[in-house]
Order: sequence, then C-alpha cells, then structure tokens
Amino acid sequence: MPRLYALVLSGGAGTRLWPRSRRARPKQFLDLVGESSLLQDTVERVSDLIPTERVFLVAPPEHRSLIHEQLPGLAADHVVVEPYPRGNAAAVALAMASLQALDPDAVVVVLPSDHVIRDRRAFRDVLLSAAAAADVGYIVTLGIEPEGPDTGFGYIEAGAPLPVAGPIPVRAVKRFIEKPGREAALRMVGAGGYYWNAGMFVWRVSVVLEAYREHLPHTAKAIEALTEALGSPRYEQVLADAWEETDRTTIDYGIAEKAANVAVVPAVIGWHDVGSWARLAEVALVGTTGGVIARDAERNFVHAPGKLVTLIGVSDLVVVDTPDALLVSARDRAEDVKAVVDGLEREGRQELL
Amino acid sequence: MPRLYALVLSGGAGTRLWPRSRRARPKQFLDLVGESSLLQDTVERVSDLIPTERVFLVAPPEHRSLIHEQLPGLAADHVVVEPYPRGNAAAVALAMASLQALDPDAVVVVLPSDHVIRDRRAFRDVLLSAAAAADVGYIVTLGIEPEGPDTGFGYIEAGAPLPVAGPIPVRAVKRFIEKPGREAALRMVGAGGYYWNAGMFVWRVSVVLEAYREHLPHTAKAIEALTEALGSPRYEQVLADAWEETDRTTIDYGIAEKAANVAVVPAVIGWHDVGSWARLAEVALVGTTGGVIARDAERNFVHAPGKLVTLIGVSDLVVVDTPDALLVSARDRAEDVKAVVDGLEREGRQELL
Repeated sequence: MPRLYALVLSGGAGTRLWPRSRRARPKQFLDLVGESSLLQDTVERVSDLIPTERVFLVAPPEHRSLIHEQLPGLAADHVVVEPYPRGNAAAVALAMASLQALDPDAVVVVLPSDHVIRDRRAFRDVLLSAAAAADVGYIVTLGIEPEGPDTGFGYIEAGAPLPVAGPIPVRAVKRFIEKPGREAALRMVGAGGYYWNAGMFVWRVSVVLEAYREHLPHTAKAIEALTEALGSPRYEQVLADAWEETDRTTIDYGIAEKAANVAVVPAVIGWHDVGSWARLAEVALVGTTGGVIARDAERNFVHAPGKLVTLIGVSDLVVVDTPDALLVSARDRAEDVKAVVDGLEREGRQELL
Repeated sequence: MPRLYALVLSGGAGTRLWPRSRRARPKQFLDLVGESSLLQDTVERVSDLIPTERVFLVAPPEHRSLIHEQLPGLAADHVVVEPYPRGNAAAVALAMASLQALDPDAVVVVLPSDHVIRDRRAFRDVLLSAAAAADVGYIVTLGIEPEGPDTGFGYIEAGAPLPVAGPIPVRAVKRFIEKPGREAALRMVGAGGYYWNAGMFVWRVSVVLEAYREHLPHTAKAIEALTEALGSPRYEQVLADAWEETDRTTIDYGIAEKAANVAVVPAVIGWHDVGSWARLAEVALVGTTGGVIARDAERNFVHAPGKLVTLIGVSDLVVVDTPDALLVSARDRAEDVKAVVDGLEREGRQELL
C-alpha cells in the first residue's frame, strides 16, 4: 500500500447555486447538505486513509482565509494558490511539483470539493483499489455506476480487466465520452460497462508528471522552471511568468483523455454531484430550512436556513432564500440561474455576485 | 354641510396577509401599497374634509402605541379601545356615545382601514353626497360599482332615487345580498343597479344611536350605562360589565341590513379591498421588492422588501418574504394562508403569529 495524499480541488465559482453560492463564499464553503461544508466533508470522508498532514488544496488566492477557517488543521503551505484560473491542469501540475519535492513516491487522490458521497465504506474500498492500480503505474479514474441515462455527465467506457489486486476489480479505460445526447445515454446505460466521469483521479506523482511532459509540454516546462525556483526569493516572479506559459485546459481533457495507461475503478458509493439546485434536489428533497408547511405542494426543493417556508398549491419548484436575494424557479429550469448571474455581472451588480 | 367626523375601524387580524401581517403589527399598519401604511392612507385621504382633530379610531388595546406612532397628530382620547372583540357593532356604538357627548349634531364617516382608494377626488364627491343624505336622516352606505362578478363581496341592491342634493345621485337601498354564488353575481352585474358592499358608512350620530336602540337593544342599553359613567372613576368597571352585555355582531348585519332608512351612494373611486394577497395582487402586480428578475415568468405577485427576487419558469404565484417566514403560493390558493395561520395557532407557534 503506497502512501496516499489528497489534492482537493477548490476552484470553481458555483454560479449555478446562486444566490446562496457567492464569489466571496462559493458552494464548497457552504453547508448545503448537513452541518459541515462540502469542502469539510471532502476532507473528512477520506480521513481514515489520508490524515490532514497529507492533504493539499488548490484554490484561488481570495479563498485562503476561508479555507483556513474551515480547515484549521491544514498547514498554510498545503494550499497551492493558482495566481489566476487556467482550467485545473496547470494548478494540479503545480501541486504535483510540490508533492514530488516532498515525497517522490507519493500517490495522490484528486478530489473535487462539490460532491456528496453517501457510502463512505464503499468509497474507501474504491480508493484502495485505485491506489493499488496507481501504484503499478496507472492513471486511475473513478467510474460512477450510472443511476440512469443522465445527459449532464461525461461517460467512461471500460475495457478489459487489469491484473491489479484490491477489493474492487480495476478495468482499462477504452475511451472517454463527452456529455451525450439522450439516445446515446440510453444506449450506454442499457449496454453496461459505461460509467459517469466524476472527475476523481488517483495517480503516482511521477507517473502523472510524465504524462504532463508528453501531453501538456508547455505546462510541464513551466512547472519544471518553478520547481527549480522553489524556496528561492525569485519564486513569485518565476510563478507569474511561468503561469502564462501553461496550457489552458483541465486534467480531464489535457491528461486523462490523452494518456494510454488510464484505468477505471467502478464505484457504487452513493455519489451525487451537487453543482446545481436541481442536482442538490436529487440528493435532499427538503433542504435546509426552519420548517416547511406544505398544502397540496409536492416535489419542491427548499433552501431557506432558519426560515419557516409555507408552500400552497405549488409543485416542482426550487426555492432558495438568502438575506439579499430570493430565487423561485421551476425545478427543470434551475440551471438558468447561471444566465441570471451572467446578467448581474454585465450590469455590474457586484453586491449580488 | 354638516360637520364631518371620521371613525376609522382598526380591528381585524389580517391573517390572510400572513406572514407579513402579524398579531403585533397587522395589515393596517403595513406599507403594503406605497410608502405609508394603509391606516395612514385612510386618514390622509379624507383630510380635506375631516382634519385629524375630528378623526376617531376603534382599536384593540394592544395596538395603542402603534397607532400613536403612525398617527402622531391623533389625540390619545380619540382612540376608542374595545376591551375585547365582539364584532364591530359594540365598538362603533361605544365611539358613537363619546361623539354624541362631544357634538350631538355630528355626522360620522365610518372607514375600514384596509382599503385602497385610487381616485381621491371622486371619493370626496361621494362623501359629500353621503353626508348630505346622512344630514337628512339616512344611514348611508357606499356602493362600489362592480368591476366584475366577484363572489368575494356582499352586494347592495339599489332602489329609487332619493331627493338629496349633492354631486352624486343618492338611491334608497332595497336589500343587502350576502356573498353570492357565481351565477347570482353574473346576473346582478348584468342587470346593473347592484353594488359591492365595502363596509363604509356615513350617518348622523343621533340617527344611528336610534337604530341601535331599535335593532340592537342590548348594545344600546350597555352604551347608555357607559355614557352615564363617562368621566367618572367607575367607568372602567362599568365598561367591563357593559361590554359583556353587548350584541356580538357587526354594523353590516346588526344595523345596516335591518334599518329601513338606508341609502346608497354609487361610488366609482378606484376602490380595492386589500385583505388578502390575491386581492393585493389585483392592485399592484409587482409588490414591494428590491427588484425582480423574471425569465419566462408571468403574473407573479412578489412582496419581499429590499430583496432581489428572481423568478424562472413560474407563473401565477404569490411570493411573500419576511425575516422569519416565506410564503410561496399559487395565486388562486392564497386564501389558504388563513388555514396555515390557524394551524400555527393550534401548535402554539406564537413567534410566527
């Protein structure tokens, strides 16, 4: 069993969870499900395998103080700050360079911070298998067993079983499929052997840095320059210069879809994306409130912390209350909040963003 | 032209405007339409004819300080406090007794405090005609020209024209009709000569006290005992005893429907009842908010002071936000809030009432 590290991705604006998610406190810092924040849940749920001393985080500079407030046990130099967003491939590479300096044999679990995972024990088994595969040189992705023909996720087609020891059988990845149409989704779910891509990866640091050199050479070169400057007074200047040279892409597109040695661990772990109100409504139909009175009202999702919400003769709504903004949306139209936020941005309504 | 006094009725719980209307501050004290409260509007709109020195008010004891806060010019002894509610007939009789002691020739305009009247000039003309009819001995009611076959109001059937001078012709009242069914309402509106009963009356104090003696003798007797005790130290005790003896009814049922000398002044004055959210929505489709963003959203009534409200893909809703309670109701179901309030009362949720 290799020594496991976690790299938590805490970027992303969370505009589809507006008005609760705001620039100053985006979704991962909110207690949308339960009493701790999504970020805290992300770190807590792997704590059996990965103690806080081996947790790293990628985040924009403005969230530093929020992170230390919510994760007081996290060392300050474990927060890898991306000078400005360029997709997550560059930020992940930056973190990998630091990690290699610390522990050349490190195996890293990359975790988005806006997921819900209900079955912690099953997740642990999946990670153990993934770590075993990463240890022998695979770039491992977690494949969520589909619950239906969802067109909102990318899919992974699994290939042959791989000779990796672990509680869950590991398979080769045949290909990644971008968010499909309804028919293609139905076909894949019917056929079996296709999984949702949840953006979770496990790899050996040396293996992924080799993949960067092969598939994202600009990023690899920039990160090498940075590694040389690590700890020197000119580091900040080198970072500013190098950052501009990195490839503007994500680890999904830039690394996972291009690498040959990619494996998938099928995961039945009670996983839920909670990136939008409609998604959150799938997890917890009644959200955070001070109580709900419903008369002839069904399938409404309510998020109104501390407030009594009365629903009369309305169905399939998303209702989200905050001190300065209130959202009432048809559930199947809740993704439109992104367009509303874009509009507020164009109008310069900073106080609402 | 007789000297006019106003008696503003400020009872009523306003539960159909919950959660904005609360026991501690019911609807008449709220700025639901415009910037002043319904009560302030009620007094202000008759101020040309009736200065504050001649304004009286009937209210429960717990609203005394709110009344003086909102109507600082009102003399303390112009607030007629009903010890506890018994319909408004007893409270009005109590006020009439005080008024008769002050000015035996007084003509009084009785005004509910939860109405909107848009055409102030037309209302003035109606009051002048009503005062002229009251001056010659009629108990005068105002008849709102129906805007449609509304089944939520009582109706008044007008009879022959009366020989009263004034800007608007005055007619005898043939009969009062309780809230009708849809067919009866359609028939009356089609026939013409039927008016909505808005609960506004104009009468000479001596005339209405005679009507009390005839139709509500218990109330009349109790009030006579009170009049004798006026100004004496035993008044409070006499009031407590007398109040129990009064008839439990309203001026509509107890006096207007029974008296023979009732007249009606047809009124086209931009009148609106605002006793419920659905009614309020008829007056002002967009209520008090810090702005509304609507995407494929129509005919929604929003009351959320200071808050930005975003509506996506929803129609015909009533949305009412307050610091501790939020209501989202189908517009045609908004009257159900009364049942919700009853439920909260049964559960002892005092903090929300």
